[in-house]
Amino acid sequence: MIANSVGDPSVTIENVSVNKSFDGWHKQYSHRSSVLNCEMRFAIYLPPQASNGEKVPVLYWLSGLTCTDENFMQKAGAQALAAELGIAIVAPDTSPRGDDVADDEGYDLGKGAGFYVNATQVPWSRHYQMYDYVVDELPKLIESMFPVSDKRSIAGHSMGGHGALVIALRNSDTYQSVSAFSPISNPINCPWGKKAFTAYLGRDTKTWSDYDASVLMRQATSFVPALVDQGDGDNFMVEQLKPEMLEAAASVSGYPLTLNIREGYDHSYYFISSYIENHLRFHAEHLKK
Amino acid sequence: MIANSVGDPSVTIENVSVNKSFDGWHKQYSHRSSVLNCEMRFAIYLPPQASNGEKVPVLYWLSGLTCTDENFMQKAGAQALAAELGIAIVAPDTSPRGDDVADDEGYDLGKGAGFYVNATQVPWSRHYQMYDYVVDELPKLIESMFPVSDKRSIAGHSMGGHGALVIALRNSDTYQSVSAFSPISNPINCPWGKKAFTAYLGRDTKTWSDYDASVLMRQATSFVPALVDQGDGDNFMVEQLKPEMLEAAASVSGYPLTLNIREGYDHSYYFISSYIENHLRFHAEHLKK
Repeated sequence: MIANSVGDPSVTIENVSVNKSFDGWHKQYSHRSSVLNCEMRFAIYLPPQASNGEKVPVLYWLSGLTCTDENFMQKAGAQALAAELGIAIVAPDTSPRGDDVADDEGYDLGKGAGFYVNATQVPWSRHYQMYDYVVDELPKLIESMFPVSDKRSIAGHSMGGHGALVIALRNSDTYQSVSAFSPISNPINCPWGKKAFTAYLGRDTKTWSDYDASVLMRQATSFVPALVDQGDGDNFMVEQLKPEMLEAAASVSGYPLTLNIREGYDHSYYFISSYIENHLRFHAEHLKK
Repeated sequence: MIANSVGDPSVTIENVSVNKSFDGWHKQYSHRSSVLNCEMRFAIYLPPQASNGEKVPVLYWLSGLTCTDENFMQKAGAQALAAELGIAIVAPDTSPRGDDVADDEGYDLGKGAGFYVNATQVPWSRHYQMYDYVVDELPKLIESMFPVSDKRSIAGHSMGGHGALVIALRNSDTYQSVSAFSPISNPINCPWGKKAFTAYLGRDTKTWSDYDASVLMRQATSFVPALVDQGDGDNFMVEQLKPEMLEAAASVSGYPLTLNIREGYDHSYYFISSYIENHLRFHAEHLKK
């Protein structure tokens, strides 16, 4: 157990694993989340610069349905360039966890499917406050415990791409840049989003727009540079992801969005790893300004 | 089903999955192995050059205990450079598979633990012929079905590092180069090796030396350039891996072995991914001669 260096002295985090990676360190920690009201695990990649007294900027990565903190760290191949660029990467889990946390039989609701919202409906509201966890509690913890600066960017895949876009759009002062692979771009109009938002936010669809990247981007008046990659061989593109809705929204508000459609690529980490270098260079450019 | 283009017209392979990756293709296939007497799955990464009419050389990757064809393809981060260098990578499974294949309760014997030997003992001998599968049957299948040349190199991790070294040492005309991460360097003198060789090869230890890289390297008179990386933070190094035995053997025979001890690295794919670039460049140098 490591005591928190600032703030609440009762906050502790416990190291779960350590692996050297590209002269830096991949580490997993567990901690008690007061926002989520349960024990949570996250992973952090600390580039070699962080061992040499530098405070490095942080890219937060939000994963997709069914994932944990491990998928991105094991499969994206991001560490090589993060080490070169001197960027830390933090990967939270995708939902609250534990035996007393509400769940659903489907892979697209409940554990592994928190959708990065603050749930208002019973039984979900007791633990499913992933928006506040990612925006507030986790960055405070990271910035108090690790040699990182307060420069933050955010990225994600699929459900996590939705989360990253929504969080950057609603907190344009906090994030230097945002990027997404295959994001759920318009959840209020797709099956995954409708199912999750009905459960977490209730049947009154008025509250849903606060968590819809296309709605938020259309109304935006302050901007975070945004990069999105979408494979056109992705089986979820037409029914669930709807990148065209994001593009249409950006054209209304003049949002600085670059959307790349990549021929033949699918929804997997084989796609993410193929283009993660572009995304890291994009974030580095904005994090190091 | 795709019929084999040459040889036995009854040989077919079935495509299981396809993912575009760095402008090339990651594919999984299943096929009936006559050597192993069961259905097997393998993965192949075909770089973009293979789609453009070139016959590319092949690096065979042998995985470690408990692995399948998937671990290396998902976690090593090899595709970026394989695409740049124009090298195909083939990853077989680590043992025969299926309900009628003999198994053991331990993770280090039976399924997922074939040790790349030809078993002589009942009940293992019916299916556990991984040496012949990797040396003969699989390369013939690959070279008849895919746009690859007959230039082969071989590499692996842990149990697969043992397999790669043994196979290159016993077939110096067939492989251009060999490399290993954290290999079981002297299996006849470590617990993993003794347990597996007793089961697969029997209690007469005279037959074991044919599958021991340190014994074979000490006696070698024809050479395949060899590269080995070993992390000194690897919990298995002292008891199971014994890289010093390989180094001693090389000094006796004058074997062209480069052994790198890497400070702080462990036994995981975080280590492999950190140095896979060096290994791929080493193999490319010899495959492209």
